[in-house]
Amino acid sequence: MRLSKAFIPTLKEVPSDAVIPSHILMVRSGMVRMLSAGIYSFLPLGYKVIKKISDIIREEMDAIGGQEFHLPALNPKEIWEATNRVEAFGDTMFHVKNREYVLAPTHEEIMTYHAKGVLKSYKDLPQIWYQIQTKFRNEPRPRSGVIRGRQFLMKDAYSFDASLEGLDESYELHDKAYRKIFDRCGLDYFVVGASSGAMGGSKSEEFMVKSEAGEDTVAYCSSCGFAANVEVAPSKIERISRQNESKEIYEISTPNVKSIDELCEFLKINERETAKSRVYIHNGQPVLILMSGNDEVNETKLGSILGGEVRPGHQEELKEITGADAGSIGPIGFKHRIIADLRLKDGNNLFSGANKNDYHIGGIDLQRDVPNLEYADLRIVESGENCSNCSNTIEVFKAIELGHIFKLGTKYSEGLGAMFLDENSKENPIIMGSYGIGVERVLACFIEQNNDENGIIWKKPLSPFDVHLIGLNMKKEIVVEACESIFNELSENKFDVIFDDRTNVQAGFKFSDADLLGMPIQIIVGERRLKENQVELKIRATGERINVGINELSSKIKELLK
Amino acid sequence: MRLSKAFIPTLKEVPSDAVIPSHILMVRSGMVRMLSAGIYSFLPLGYKVIKKISDIIREEMDAIGGQEFHLPALNPKEIWEATNRVEAFGDTMFHVKNREYVLAPTHEEIMTYHAKGVLKSYKDLPQIWYQIQTKFRNEPRPRSGVIRGRQFLMKDAYSFDASLEGLDESYELHDKAYRKIFDRCGLDYFVVGASSGAMGGSKSEEFMVKSEAGEDTVAYCSSCGFAANVEVAPSKIERISRQNESKEIYEISTPNVKSIDELCEFLKINERETAKSRVYIHNGQPVLILMSGNDEVNETKLGSILGGEVRPGHQEELKEITGADAGSIGPIGFKHRIIADLRLKDGNNLFSGANKNDYHIGGIDLQRDVPNLEYADLRIVESGENCSNCSNTIEVFKAIELGHIFKLGTKYSEGLGAMFLDENSKENPIIMGSYGIGVERVLACFIEQNNDENGIIWKKPLSPFDVHLIGLNMKKEIVVEACESIFNELSENKFDVIFDDRTNVQAGFKFSDADLLGMPIQIIVGERRLKENQVELKIRATGERINVGINELSSKIKELLK
Repeated sequence: MRLSKAFIPTLKEVPSDAVIPSHILMVRSGMVRMLSAGIYSFLPLGYKVIKKISDIIREEMDAIGGQEFHLPALNPKEIWEATNRVEAFGDTMFHVKNREYVLAPTHEEIMTYHAKGVLKSYKDLPQIWYQIQTKFRNEPRPRSGVIRGRQFLMKDAYSFDASLEGLDESYELHDKAYRKIFDRCGLDYFVVGASSGAMGGSKSEEFMVKSEAGEDTVAYCSSCGFAANVEVAPSKIERISRQNESKEIYEISTPNVKSIDELCEFLKINERETAKSRVYIHNGQPVLILMSGNDEVNETKLGSILGGEVRPGHQEELKEITGADAGSIGPIGFKHRIIADLRLKDGNNLFSGANKNDYHIGGIDLQRDVPNLEYADLRIVESGENCSNCSNTIEVFKAIELGHIFKLGTKYSEGLGAMFLDENSKENPIIMGSYGIGVERVLACFIEQNNDENGIIWKKPLSPFDVHLIGLNMKKEIVVEACESIFNELSENKFDVIFDDRTNVQAGFKFSDADLLGMPIQIIVGERRLKENQVELKIRATGERINVGINELSSKIKELLK
Repeated sequence: MRLSKAFIPTLKEVPSDAVIPSHILMVRSGMVRMLSAGIYSFLPLGYKVIKKISDIIREEMDAIGGQEFHLPALNPKEIWEATNRVEAFGDTMFHVKNREYVLAPTHEEIMTYHAKGVLKSYKDLPQIWYQIQTKFRNEPRPRSGVIRGRQFLMKDAYSFDASLEGLDESYELHDKAYRKIFDRCGLDYFVVGASSGAMGGSKSEEFMVKSEAGEDTVAYCSSCGFAANVEVAPSKIERISRQNESKEIYEISTPNVKSIDELCEFLKINERETAKSRVYIHNGQPVLILMSGNDEVNETKLGSILGGEVRPGHQEELKEITGADAGSIGPIGFKHRIIADLRLKDGNNLFSGANKNDYHIGGIDLQRDVPNLEYADLRIVESGENCSNCSNTIEVFKAIELGHIFKLGTKYSEGLGAMFLDENSKENPIIMGSYGIGVERVLACFIEQNNDENGIIWKKPLSPFDVHLIGLNMKKEIVVEACESIFNELSENKFDVIFDDRTNVQAGFKFSDADLLGMPIQIIVGERRLKENQVELKIRATGERINVGINELSSKIKELLK
């Protein structure tokens, strides 16, 4: 491809709405243009990479026996009503005005619809069906370029099995295929929520990359690879120390002291000497949650411990239940269930609210003073804590989900009546899994992980071109001739070359475009070196420059691209 | 691919809603399934062919310098308002409920939007941009399977030029690419509305195939290749003969005679002795159109001859203007403009209405009795007439549009302000062309042209598989072993094989599935021939059967697929 004819509109300026590197660089390198918030057009350079990613995905999906479908984006609303998902998606689902259609945000329903009555027997199973197709979601706050958009390309796959063991196998196949896909794409990723390997159930795994643009917060241990969403990541922090001697409890007047920080400041004590109280309403009954200092209650953990319906109490409820406002509540005298975070286990000489505004109580011994106290892991894990798996240090950061594999079970097959006959001619709902990859996210995340201040740094598998050939002064015949001959030779040798043949552009501009576009190898063709029958190669990743004889060029490039 | 694991749900029955062969066969062979009226899901076999067609299109578009984009289906409504196309499309355009989006029925606007401000100089031109992407149109009467649907895959391309000569070149490139694409796909097509080759303007060509499912009616000459939509096809029919002697005009009482047929019956005359009168209102003024016998007025031709606003007169208007009802109107005594079809040129001794109910007039000499009479080609061409180009016989039939190439000019660049600076630094709107191919239509039309009573007859380029390998009795070890070894050998030799390895299916069923699915070559592996180290090949297109030694199988298949 000749740059003089190609439509690769590079930009020097950082686009005003772009914050993260991938978004900035995809716009600056002319890979995409925004059409509307969360809606991007792929220009030729960007779409070339999308096709490469899609091909890798296809190869690995085909390798596990996946069969490629292509389902419509326009879906009759009634099919989605059969599984109550019109309601579940709410305004996130786009509805069409002129007919009773929705725009599919995913395709569990439609795949199940096609399975129904066709996958009739256990002999027709297992099946793995996939597609690479555009999804539509009315994302309220689209951002980070193509990472969170209102329409996006997704590889979605669905498995259909006759048994939970079969589902386990289909799930494992996808797990392996996903690792191969992300490995081949050159991504540095980790896996969150690893399946226990236990049979069936509703296990899921997310394939993620670290990124400030992420919407999830993850606890990750680089030593053992353990990773979990902070919503569920177990905390393995040291308990507060129990002092040898427990003081008696005593009331302290603490006017206007409402937060833990104010209490510590007022009493000149350490955060770990305090127990913060939060009141939740669980199935209509109050529960007091005690946390150490400023530790936050992890409401996901709390929810799964309590089960049922859990919500924070409102201001008026707190007053009615405890007699005090939020900043002055405590375990002493609280008449209902109390659960303390494990970090507080058997703590003594603690300060907490007095259930009376402007008063706190000191000298609390949880063993002695809080009968029937329960303990549970209720903390939100923080960076620097010990890994619950290997005891090395854990890091907490934001992450982007690249892919998700999920044991669905029978929700959709039951909802839509997709049944099969087992060996005993008994009718059962088909057991399903679903498996997604955000295709544009693979591209964006690769760039997030492979860039420098000058631009993108492609590796061979996703690089839009193998080689960026730069003719320095295209008004000199010797340069033009050498470039044309190199361009032809490399093209004949099946290298994909982008050739900067522009005559009206200065060398500096060509260099910065080449760095911005980021092909793995640049070939710089100038008059001076040509006289010695040489050209200069620049390795984009390292900046290394090598002089190579024109005759050895093809073999050298082959070697470098290995 | 093993049929036992593949999802290819073949059907014996003809689907109740399918009429034309391609629709019936695409459903019966498990290529597609309907999700809703005009909305089809592609199953693996069908999507495999779609990918092959897309690849051929890509190769030929790339060969003319096309660059592949991928534009969003969700479009901000305001961009479409800039060219007044929200109104122009009306209810054919899908609108989204939850946001001010439309679903793009085509992409002139969005391509132009991206060209604007980026293709700034004549040096940035020409450009050819294309995509293979899903379009959405709220088709009121979807039918013929994937041929007329509410969402469909289209290759749409757009050219951007600095001059009308440039547009001519871009248009020619597409014309050639389209012929290559349809040739490579093995389609029997013809081209309608051939460009005169004159510079610029708004020429267009349609690439069509003959089909009862078509929405267009076309006049086609197989001798010279001339083709035109009947709406504009010129008529080259012999004029009615002028008799040597003109009779005087005379009035005849013709009670209850209203149609030409009734008149001929009543007077025992030939249709060609009559002149039928139709009254149109042109810019508010009546015009009488005289046609020979039952010849129909071609209103498209009439419209382009008259210009301005033309419509048939209503019953009351006719009465007021002529004094008679529709069946009794005639040229004699008609006070306004009269145009006769060329077929009537200088005719005499004609019968026509008397402008008085239940009366006709005979002995009309158009030269003598109708002053200021104008003549024009106003007939709808019919099968069996002479070709206007070469005088051989023309055929009139229904046809499907596969592709369309169109010189747009500056409508969209002006509407959206996509301007470039020419050599003299003068600002001009970019000159555009647009070029479409209905991807699913290529598939459906191929099947329309390549099927028999047993199923589809694929040719190599689009065939989902090269070879259909049939193991006759897969309970016999000798058959299984031979099949596995053939399957492996052919796969290693890069043939794409579908292997009917099903153990629970009878031979007859396997044969009919193989004919239905229609791969070019069937290999039938049975016990008897295996004992002679042979298998049977069946050529799907001809039904020819050949016994081939197992050792020569690969080379024989290579030869046959050439």
